[in-house]
Amino acid sequence: MKVGIIGASGYGGLELIRFLHNHPEVEQITLFTSSEEGTIFSQKYSHLLNILDQPLQRIENDRLEQFDVVFSSAPAGVASQLLPPLVGKGPKLIDLSGDFRLKDLALYEEWYKKEPAPASAVAESVYGLTEWNKAAIAKAQLIANPGCYPTAVLLSLLPLLKENLIDPSQLIIDAKSGVSGAGNQPNQMTHFSETNENTAIYKLNQHQHIPEIEQAFSLFAQDAPPITFSTHLVPMTRGILATSYATVAEGMTEEDLVNCLEETYADKPFVRIIRETNKFGTNQVYGSNYCDIHVKVDPRTNRATIVSVIDNLVKGAAGQAIQNMNVQFNLDETAGLAHVPAFI
Amino acid sequence: MKVGIIGASGYGGLELIRFLHNHPEVEQITLFTSSEEGTIFSQKYSHLLNILDQPLQRIENDRLEQFDVVFSSAPAGVASQLLPPLVGKGPKLIDLSGDFRLKDLALYEEWYKKEPAPASAVAESVYGLTEWNKAAIAKAQLIANPGCYPTAVLLSLLPLLKENLIDPSQLIIDAKSGVSGAGNQPNQMTHFSETNENTAIYKLNQHQHIPEIEQAFSLFAQDAPPITFSTHLVPMTRGILATSYATVAEGMTEEDLVNCLEETYADKPFVRIIRETNKFGTNQVYGSNYCDIHVKVDPRTNRATIVSVIDNLVKGAAGQAIQNMNVQFNLDETAGLAHVPAFI
Amino acid sequence: MKVGIIGASGYGGLELIRFLHNHPEVEQITLFTSSEEGTIFSQKYSHLLNILDQPLQRIENDRLEQFDVVFSSAPAGVASQLLPPLVGKGPKLIDLSGDFRLKDLALYEEWYKKEPAPASAVAESVYGLTEWNKAAIAKAQLIANPGCYPTAVLLSLLPLLKENLIDPSQLIIDAKSGVSGAGNQPNQMTHFSETNENTAIYKLNQHQHIPEIEQAFSLFAQDAPPITFSTHLVPMTRGILATSYATVAEGMTEEDLVNCLEETYADKPFVRIIRETNKFGTNQVYGSNYCDIHVKVDPRTNRATIVSVIDNLVKGAAGQAIQNMNVQFNLDETAGLAHVPAFI
Amino acid sequence: MKVGIIGASGYGGLELIRFLHNHPEVEQITLFTSSEEGTIFSQKYSHLLNILDQPLQRIENDRLEQFDVVFSSAPAGVASQLLPPLVGKGPKLIDLSGDFRLKDLALYEEWYKKEPAPASAVAESVYGLTEWNKAAIAKAQLIANPGCYPTAVLLSLLPLLKENLIDPSQLIIDAKSGVSGAGNQPNQMTHFSETNENTAIYKLNQHQHIPEIEQAFSLFAQDAPPITFSTHLVPMTRGILATSYATVAEGMTEEDLVNCLEETYADKPFVRIIRETNKFGTNQVYGSNYCDIHVKVDPRTNRATIVSVIDNLVKGAAGQAIQNMNVQFNLDETAGLAHVPAFI
Repeated sequence: MKVGIIGASGYGGLELIRFLHNHPEVEQITLFTSSEEGTIFSQKYSHLLNILDQPLQRIENDRLEQFDVVFSSAPAGVASQLLPPLVGKGPKLIDLSGDFRLKDLALYEEWYKKEPAPASAVAESVYGLTEWNKAAIAKAQLIANPGCYPTAVLLSLLPLLKENLIDPSQLIIDAKSGVSGAGNQPNQMTHFSETNENTAIYKLNQHQHIPEIEQAFSLFAQDAPPITFSTHLVPMTRGILATSYATVAEGMTEEDLVNCLEETYADKPFVRIIRETNKFGTNQVYGSNYCDIHVKVDPRTNRATIVSVIDNLVKGAAGQAIQNMNVQFNLDETAGLAHVPAFI
Repeated sequence: MKVGIIGASGYGGLELIRFLHNHPEVEQITLFTSSEEGTIFSQKYSHLLNILDQPLQRIENDRLEQFDVVFSSAPAGVASQLLPPLVGKGPKLIDLSGDFRLKDLALYEEWYKKEPAPASAVAESVYGLTEWNKAAIAKAQLIANPGCYPTAVLLSLLPLLKENLIDPSQLIIDAKSGVSGAGNQPNQMTHFSETNENTAIYKLNQHQHIPEIEQAFSLFAQDAPPITFSTHLVPMTRGILATSYATVAEGMTEEDLVNCLEETYADKPFVRIIRETNKFGTNQVYGSNYCDIHVKVDPRTNRATIVSVIDNLVKGAAGQAIQNMNVQFNLDETAGLAHVPAFI
Repeated sequence: MKVGIIGASGYGGLELIRFLHNHPEVEQITLFTSSEEGTIFSQKYSHLLNILDQPLQRIENDRLEQFDVVFSSAPAGVASQLLPPLVGKGPKLIDLSGDFRLKDLALYEEWYKKEPAPASAVAESVYGLTEWNKAAIAKAQLIANPGCYPTAVLLSLLPLLKENLIDPSQLIIDAKSGVSGAGNQPNQMTHFSETNENTAIYKLNQHQHIPEIEQAFSLFAQDAPPITFSTHLVPMTRGILATSYATVAEGMTEEDLVNCLEETYADKPFVRIIRETNKFGTNQVYGSNYCDIHVKVDPRTNRATIVSVIDNLVKGAAGQAIQNMNVQFNLDETAGLAHVPAFI
Repeated sequence: MKVGIIGASGYGGLELIRFLHNHPEVEQITLFTSSEEGTIFSQKYSHLLNILDQPLQRIENDRLEQFDVVFSSAPAGVASQLLPPLVGKGPKLIDLSGDFRLKDLALYEEWYKKEPAPASAVAESVYGLTEWNKAAIAKAQLIANPGCYPTAVLLSLLPLLKENLIDPSQLIIDAKSGVSGAGNQPNQMTHFSETNENTAIYKLNQHQHIPEIEQAFSLFAQDAPPITFSTHLVPMTRGILATSYATVAEGMTEEDLVNCLEETYADKPFVRIIRETNKFGTNQVYGSNYCDIHVKVDPRTNRATIVSVIDNLVKGAAGQAIQNMNVQFNLDETAGLAHVPAFI
């Protein structure tokens, strides 16, 4: 397979390279850029010396059409312009931005404050939450790869919502993320001295992943009232931990919830249910494509606390994108992705 | 004033020393220990060289009775034994452990899994949430200094509960803490390589600060149903950020909530209400005795998100303890505590 | 005393505010800016709410002349323009940039790649290494406050060079710094995701503090050959640890070196010699104006390893600046600076 | 191949598992323990759930003899007891401790303060610095895998010493390490709150890697006088950066040094020479088996600064161990080790 990557300089792009380089079916990786044409990639990123020493190419549709698959790691508002001309052409397309995720264009405009992508391309796109949409992904040309937060939230909540084990009307989701989710552009919010030794809440009630989560609830489980979802920045590079709170449905128990999760994911290689643990954290999936889930019901309140962890750059971005590529090409879902979590 | 500190080697003790050393009314600080008698303190902690070079003293009630005030930074289960013999004697007593906080001894046993302190001493003790209990603190001999999490949670929620601005029946509190809250004893949970680059949930539904928060709701605001309260460890040393979620009471608005908080704390030097912010984090109170609070109501859900930040070792421990000492001795509440937050 | 601060938005400025706010002789602090006139400072930096709520003022020489002392935390290349008009006028001037440190203007141009300050102002300036230049500082109007690295290096090496206890011809200095030394402007080098979990060497053989150290050797100890000095960025916010290596002079012992250091600083409140230690690190001076020094001689090599630690923002910048102000105004050297190191 | 791992619970063991799990020639991994027999490994380390769910086995020589290769990640002082009975038996043996590295047993006792391993086993062992000892490794049964610091130091200095490009008599090596090098046993030195936001020097002139480096100089390059080598702990988990300082030999230039390094490692897949860089750090080898080297000569001093970076747990431990296994079994040196550095 020949793979093209648009926007390789971003962190999504770097992670695509990290995994695709050792993917058994990938023969060739070519990098495209809108602004750094000719730059030798391993001079910009010396960790890739001897691994990817090619110059960045100018984005040209003629060239891109010749690849088997094109990943875009371009930012929201840019992918919406770059990918539509390739729809209906040869390559499979996998977009890591939010530009093709929201089917309701008005919602996109409201939350992203940008021009939406052309309606036809959005209509064409398939939401790439692999474990929940595999059949559609297998047939899709254009994949809208899920956001990092939605991946962590949806994998843990969808089974419980679908089986009516929790009350959708009182859902509170409190998410914590490492800083790499903010990308590679330096700004005050990601400046080391103001991020280190600091835990902060940001974009309160304004995060663009809110409508994405709500849309997926409708699509895969049930319509639910608007959710409360808040996002925090913690002083680490990788990892998302999402803590969700919901009232347990009448008559249901912790065991019912755990069983439902275990059954849903029994044959899914990248989702693991952790039954007992004293300390459940992001390091147990570090660097890997796993999503781990833990759930407890408090008998005092009859409320469930559902916790999930992912590596935001892997299962929350590049890893899931490759998992989707594997599905599109009918490969083993784990091809190139069987990295063991680093833990330390 | 002559001050004695029991358990000075712990982080609470070190912070007491940091602030008391420059307190305008403190003449002398003497350190007591149960196991390190004779150790020159600045040999154990060389950051205190030339500042506190005295040997640690053996704990003897005769000696302790001669101080104006005795702080105990001994752990829970130890303070309960050490302080009761001093009740009714000369010194004011301020305990930083959880041993005198819960008035219901059965609750103490249930959550702490330890023998409670003698009932008479517990009955005598006054809960030291300075902004809410000043009159009682002023007259008390024995102060049960609040826990770090409860301080952050109570200061932000009590006004809203007391004025019935939020619904107490759907309260969810998600707290994030730096690692210093776990104290100075090394263990796997605080081992650098397993804590760095890791955000984790721990003691889910089991944290001993739950009954403390519930008791304070009853005492200062209203009886409320059991709460959902969960605690997370983030890779930083200092700071707590507590994110609380509650349904806004019928007819109330964000402005009502903000006004209530501003009015409650108008004349309180250490509580600040932050109206507008993009990123609200623990570094804005770092190293100081402030508690900052921010609140937003989401019109989509009519739910309030109430966020508060403290330095867990200062307002959440030693700083509030000294603030209580100031109240007990009728000093300016800010004496020795007017440190500017470090931010970086 | 009335104090003006130019460039208060930088980290040097924030630290000046942190210490000056509680300085016993400072009545009023006024902030000046070249680009943010009218901004309410506590809206930009909410950690200063209720502490410093004033608007930033435009830089005007007429106004600045009326202060008792003006600190400049403007960057190199800017201070050189702003301060000279105030030379010979009323206020004492303390500059935290490198613009007035190098007496040889050609050297400034070579290492800073900028236009030097006017020769007359440079000639007028006094190097503000308090422990070594107190008499001149007391009489000076314009202080060139030392760089962070030079402070750590000079305090530890000057006594040994002056007394000929080490060989100046084989001096190697390896310095490690937290990221705050790079200031508050976000860039790739200080971007959290590329700085966290990374130790890096930078500006190898090019750091502008090299000529500053060499000039001070000549001024306070002896002429020495060019030094090898290299700088590393470690993933923490505050702190410098400088490890210096030198051959011990013929016939001298570790005891001689330690004694020399202890004697030199016997009456200096902010320099401490640590004799025995297993682990000697920056956290023992965190947040304080101390410089701690430790020295060992290896009998296998007859080489001394001399280690010093400072908080780069305090003794390496704002703290030493205030110490110099204290000297200029004949106050106790420790006024406003007696903060105990935080350690944790 | 069937692989046994003794001491799998340590960080060296965890990293062996991380790489061996995807090694193309490894069929089976079995874990051995001296104290946790029967523990399901993925219950102790939940990041290995579904990856390695087997119980830990008791160490029995009969069983161990049946493996193709046995790695020992047991600590120094323990490996010396466990491995000798297997010498001369079936399995290849690769020891990650320091117990078989020093050929001079008296030196071992002096620096490790422990009983040395039996002389015959030490005599048998081959030092596993792959790039420098490949022929001997290929024939060896027992490999003494190099220490983390020595690996970083030796790969960068051996070529220059061997070719007489630097003066061995004035060698100063200043090394910085992440905390994982201290292993998984919690203690005060690795306690998060005292390690975070702290850079410290430790074991000054006492580090047991000093004689290992000196021995390898003699073995692979030339006898050299005792070195100055010091070690620092920086607040990150993984990574070593070693900065070495040496006077350049008469008539030699920076270009000579760089060329020598490039030629030495031209056909070595895991050593890369970085010619130009502004910032050279450990993150460029993070999680990988690479050692990157950068060298500059300062014309002012004619001194070379030679900098190398490795991931201490990979090239500095488990990665190099597997590289040695590959050599022993005549596999491609990179088998199972072609991980791309993570960078972020």
